[in-house]
Amino acid sequence: WGQRGRGGGGRRGLSFHTQYLQDEELLLAAAYVSDAQYNRNVHFETSPQAIRLYHFYNHWTMRAATYFFIWVDLALALFEEPAVFPLPFLVTSIAEVLCLTAFFGRLVHFAKVTPQNVFWKDTKNICVVVTIVLTLIDLVIYGSLEAVNIRGVRWSRALRPVFLINFPESRQIRRAFRSIRNTLPDILYVFLLFLFSMMIFSLMALKLFGDRGLRMVDGRPYFTSILDTAFELYALVTTANSPDVMMPAYELNWWYSLYFITYIIINTYIFMSVFLAVVYNNYRKHLKNEIHTLAYLKRHKMTEAFNILKVKVGTEFVVKEARWRQLVKVVAPDISSSHLELLLRISDEGQTGHVDKMNFLRLADLLNIRVVTINIKKHPLETWMPRVYQSSTSLLVQKMVQHRIFVWVYDVIILINAIFIALDEKDSLISYAEWLFLSLYIIEILLKLYTYEPSAYFGRKQFWNWFDTLIIIAALLATVANTTIQVLFLPALFLVSEASFSPRFRVIVTTLINIGPTMLTFGGLVLVVYYAFAIVGMEAFHGKVRFLDPGSGSPDAPVCGNPALKDSAFAQGRYCKNNFNDLASSLILLTELTVVNQCFALLADGFALVTHQAAKLYFIGFHIVVVILIVNIFIAFILEAFFVAYSLEKSEVETAIEKKIQELGVGVQEEEVQDGGLIDNMDTKDSGFSADEGDNRKKALKGLYFRIASKKYKTVDTLLQQMFESEIAPEGKDPSLEEILNFSPKKPNFDNLA
Amino acid sequence: WGQRGRGGGGRRGLSFHTQYLQDEELLLAAAYVSDAQYNRNVHFETSPQAIRLYHFYNHWTMRAATYFFIWVDLALALFEEPAVFPLPFLVTSIAEVLCLTAFFGRLVHFAKVTPQNVFWKDTKNICVVVTIVLTLIDLVIYGSLEAVNIRGVRWSRALRPVFLINFPESRQIRRAFRSIRNTLPDILYVFLLFLFSMMIFSLMALKLFGDRGLRMVDGRPYFTSILDTAFELYALVTTANSPDVMMPAYELNWWYSLYFITYIIINTYIFMSVFLAVVYNNYRKHLKNEIHTLAYLKRHKMTEAFNILKVKVGTEFVVKEARWRQLVKVVAPDISSSHLELLLRISDEGQTGHVDKMNFLRLADLLNIRVVTINIKKHPLETWMPRVYQSSTSLLVQKMVQHRIFVWVYDVIILINAIFIALDEKDSLISYAEWLFLSLYIIEILLKLYTYEPSAYFGRKQFWNWFDTLIIIAALLATVANTTIQVLFLPALFLVSEASFSPRFRVIVTTLINIGPTMLTFGGLVLVVYYAFAIVGMEAFHGKVRFLDPGSGSPDAPVCGNPALKDSAFAQGRYCKNNFNDLASSLILLTELTVVNQCFALLADGFALVTHQAAKLYFIGFHIVVVILIVNIFIAFILEAFFVAYSLEKSEVETAIEKKIQELGVGVQEEEVQDGGLIDNMDTKDSGFSADEGDNRKKALKGLYFRIASKKYKTVDTLLQQMFESEIAPEGKDPSLEEILNFSPKKPNFDNLA
Repeated sequence: WGQRGRGGGGRRGLSFHTQYLQDEELLLAAAYVSDAQYNRNVHFETSPQAIRLYHFYNHWTMRAATYFFIWVDLALALFEEPAVFPLPFLVTSIAEVLCLTAFFGRLVHFAKVTPQNVFWKDTKNICVVVTIVLTLIDLVIYGSLEAVNIRGVRWSRALRPVFLINFPESRQIRRAFRSIRNTLPDILYVFLLFLFSMMIFSLMALKLFGDRGLRMVDGRPYFTSILDTAFELYALVTTANSPDVMMPAYELNWWYSLYFITYIIINTYIFMSVFLAVVYNNYRKHLKNEIHTLAYLKRHKMTEAFNILKVKVGTEFVVKEARWRQLVKVVAPDISSSHLELLLRISDEGQTGHVDKMNFLRLADLLNIRVVTINIKKHPLETWMPRVYQSSTSLLVQKMVQHRIFVWVYDVIILINAIFIALDEKDSLISYAEWLFLSLYIIEILLKLYTYEPSAYFGRKQFWNWFDTLIIIAALLATVANTTIQVLFLPALFLVSEASFSPRFRVIVTTLINIGPTMLTFGGLVLVVYYAFAIVGMEAFHGKVRFLDPGSGSPDAPVCGNPALKDSAFAQGRYCKNNFNDLASSLILLTELTVVNQCFALLADGFALVTHQAAKLYFIGFHIVVVILIVNIFIAFILEAFFVAYSLEKSEVETAIEKKIQELGVGVQEEEVQDGGLIDNMDTKDSGFSADEGDNRKKALKGLYFRIASKKYKTVDTLLQQMFESEIAPEGKDPSLEEILNFSPKKPNFDNLA
Repeated sequence: WGQRGRGGGGRRGLSFHTQYLQDEELLLAAAYVSDAQYNRNVHFETSPQAIRLYHFYNHWTMRAATYFFIWVDLALALFEEPAVFPLPFLVTSIAEVLCLTAFFGRLVHFAKVTPQNVFWKDTKNICVVVTIVLTLIDLVIYGSLEAVNIRGVRWSRALRPVFLINFPESRQIRRAFRSIRNTLPDILYVFLLFLFSMMIFSLMALKLFGDRGLRMVDGRPYFTSILDTAFELYALVTTANSPDVMMPAYELNWWYSLYFITYIIINTYIFMSVFLAVVYNNYRKHLKNEIHTLAYLKRHKMTEAFNILKVKVGTEFVVKEARWRQLVKVVAPDISSSHLELLLRISDEGQTGHVDKMNFLRLADLLNIRVVTINIKKHPLETWMPRVYQSSTSLLVQKMVQHRIFVWVYDVIILINAIFIALDEKDSLISYAEWLFLSLYIIEILLKLYTYEPSAYFGRKQFWNWFDTLIIIAALLATVANTTIQVLFLPALFLVSEASFSPRFRVIVTTLINIGPTMLTFGGLVLVVYYAFAIVGMEAFHGKVRFLDPGSGSPDAPVCGNPALKDSAFAQGRYCKNNFNDLASSLILLTELTVVNQCFALLADGFALVTHQAAKLYFIGFHIVVVILIVNIFIAFILEAFFVAYSLEKSEVETAIEKKIQELGVGVQEEEVQDGGLIDNMDTKDSGFSADEGDNRKKALKGLYFRIASKKYKTVDTLLQQMFESEIAPEGKDPSLEEILNFSPKKPNFDNLA
């Protein structure tokens, strides 16, 4: 969004070096090209001062400063009691007040560039204001108590992630939270059913086992109180205490195991799957709605741009070719002239000298498809010494390198390399083997360069080839520096070796790579939840459990500094380091809890021992929020990404471009490039160029080869958009802007402000 | 499939009392009605003897006998060494030979009614033959060794599930296995990546931690050998040893926790989700293919039936009304005449006296929609004493009962009842409370009967009302008998109370109920895998770990009868009962393993101690097969079922029927029935009946009300069919039978034999 904002910043000298072109930018460019007095900020007063304020609000320095203060505010927990790096309260409170002032200033600035009624209708702003006030109150109370030496609770610290969520730049995290909020009502019903099932099973356990005087392995009574029973059974849902919780009853009579198996099937498998189904279903629904809104908004803006540039020719409105060229050059200054010609051919199929509305509307899509211009050259060696390069030995080498077995051989070499590293016993012979392997990898690259034309091999979009070479150079450096990190390069080499051949494999790997950036959103989401839970946990449990070096010989070391933990599974498992004594420890502990298994029960029991039985509620609450909601959303996201990747087909617009490329006979099949058949194909395809074209156009296109850059490097968002776009109403049935904006619960009214 | 087979049994006196009408039956009935010499068994010779053999093959006694022998064969493991109930080898081997003879006989019978080339092309038959031969060889070898007192390995027992899978009746289980087989290639690539990632992390762990002389909590060396490291990291994927495996490194320096967190994110979360995505994607693809095949086959058969009955009227072929009535009465003998008239009105819209092809083809669908005939009556009390029933007090009571709050009140009562049961301290006061609650429930039913017309309340399709009443009667009996089982009735009451109002809730509950029967397929699938693993486990591990009653004072009791387990976590956790000493114990142990958590590591370690490190491979293999494949298919199945339930809309045919019902003014809205507004609606709707109808028809329909029985009780299979049916090619573009059959990899040629 930063780029979009910058694009909107200056009216003169527009520059759009964005990776993915926004319709908004096209609209601005259209206004710029047309020189019309088009003012897109119709929604608020257009005094020069207001516009300056607005531009200043969107300036990158202001955004960066806001982020800086958000992170400073969050990081304060590292320095406040209980601290990783302790600082006096005065210092941290001054820092916090500074941050709050910055947030307040940012908000005031935003209020200045937004109509009053819009500003106060936005829950985001209200949230930020309320949080600032609450934090100030908390600071004052805590400070006064501190002055009279009473330790208060800094409860407002759990609210700090509110700033991260509610400032405009965290749109993705907000979307994830919105998705969670929308899922809640459905989840609630399943959760009620789940609780009821839990309750009934607890009652049954009480009746079945309560009176038998059984004991758990660690000597605790077995299902005698309803609360203990409920907790044990909840822990069983997390699979934390299976099969320990079953063993006493199972030893008594093996039929009792049926009770536990039934419980696990119903509550662990079925209910957890239903939670996933509900979360996934809502995630999809919500996503679809957002994508529809975006797609309609895009069409709406493109129509506006068309209306700015249109002239009447005959009975219909069109955009003149000259205007069109001007526009494209503004939005994509670094477009090659041959690429521009290709796009014009597609947009103006009849070569009438103007572009009609339908073709104009898809301009943003056209520009977003990366068409790669390929300059096909002969291999330099072939030019230099054709006889040697075309000799039968040389051809055999080339054939070998292009063969599947070549890849397999290198897979085996990588495997042997891995085994050598595993065997590594500081043997000098083995350290020499490192050099052998490295030279084998270098030979591989040289052989490939011998077979494939170098400038094609290191083409701009040949991601894997670049990656391959860089990895080997890095491994070379690592071996020279004699570090142990070279282990890390093996998987990369393996990936390269496989990815260059197997399409199934490529789908998986590239989907995983594509998911990467969007996963940062989940990072944000998880951070927000973890941070809040960590603060609460630190307030409740800090200092209760301490890690004392066993070497120190302190009598408290084996019981984690707390006699209440004597003989507990917590202390016996050497869990002392799992505590809430500072932010880092708390976050690591919460990560462990997310993985759920026996540590869930051990930790909950341990902290209940040192504080109060109610401490278990904290752990159960965390499990519900993180495992039932967030982990499921994460899984839903990965599932969706993979389904999209598997079902990916070319979009309509892409097909149109490819058809045109083929028609003009200037296309190169992607698969052929991948397999290195580029050179063989060159001559045969060249003749396909039709003769009835204008001379200047011929010159622009002749001798050039295009191909659509691999579709596999698209982001998941693009894929999703493509998937759901086919469902929106066909041209002509456009809903009004009002209707579009009502698709989603939140009004994305000021699109680059919100 | 049993019903379909029975339908095909006799040519005279056909009876189709099936719940879901098969197209096949309609085709047979058409042949029957037409009295034509139509022989549907065109594929093989039609000598009277062959037909008799064929009918005998499909006879229910033969099927039942086959199932009986399959279960006897599987159950033999209970009586063979190591046995739950030991029997001498002679007895079990004779029983096994008997079973094998039965299977062989069944196969010979099948061969007699199948052309030779078809029979031998079917892998199912070859599998069965091979398994019979292998089992016999194994029996002979084991018997001879036994005779000279050498203990052999009964390896062929692991093959017994082959009979369960490969006999014709287990179509669903085979489908599930086919789905697994189709998923394997895709899974394999992800698995390779996963293994590679595991390997690299193992190497890193070795380099990072191997030389530091760290020790696990239980004193084992920490990441010193590559095999141990790989196993610990695999166990970490199953979350079995988190965070224990991390603690030593974490205690050393908290930065090391990042290594483990990265590992968990990549291998536990991302890879496991990718496995789910791949399995789910394939599951869906496969399912879609099967449903398409079924849908096309249905249309094909309906066309055949049409061709049998058609006569030429004017330019087009049609089926005469009389023939049509005859056909419907044969396939649905208990159809009411009003329902028949309704269907005729829908099929013969123009009242031309004949049904055209398009309408004929959807006859099976039409008949499968349950249209309920409602006889609307006044409440008996209203007839008996109208003044009292219509008095303001009475109306108030009726309104109260119909209100949402009435349901809430009873939810609260159920909750209080649950709390009372939980508090139950053998207090006489509380046991009286039981009676109070029961009377409250009975009052609820009486109030409902007062408000709603009894015959409507206990209508044939009013599932929840029936259920409600039965539960309360059962609870009454349980309270009289003073058993503790009454706890079980509470969730049922809660379900009834909620389901009668909240639609969201009803979707969840009814989907769960609908999934039930299909879940039996998974039961079969899981049984097959568990059985094979249990037999292997019993051969490998039986007797190694024994459970000795701790009360017996035996010195071996704390170490599970095996000194190798001294001081092991296995023995300390009192896991002795988790052993492979008989079939029941083995199956319970495998169930525990499926749940995966620390028990995975404990069990694998324990059994590795008493046998050999290679034992861990058994546990890893089980985890891969069950958790990565089968549990994921289970989750995929539940996800799909819920997505279908959420996206469920009325099918085309249903809409046609509902439209007609509305047109004729004889319909009652389902929601109105649910809310008890039936009585109010009666008079207003009656006048909608149009006057231009024939008199006899008027008589048949007049005064009757129809509604489509709740769509929510359909099976998942029906829902799926409905979902994918919309995707099949429209009428007229039918593929040929050959093409249809080639949709699926297996030829469903002899549909009721295969």
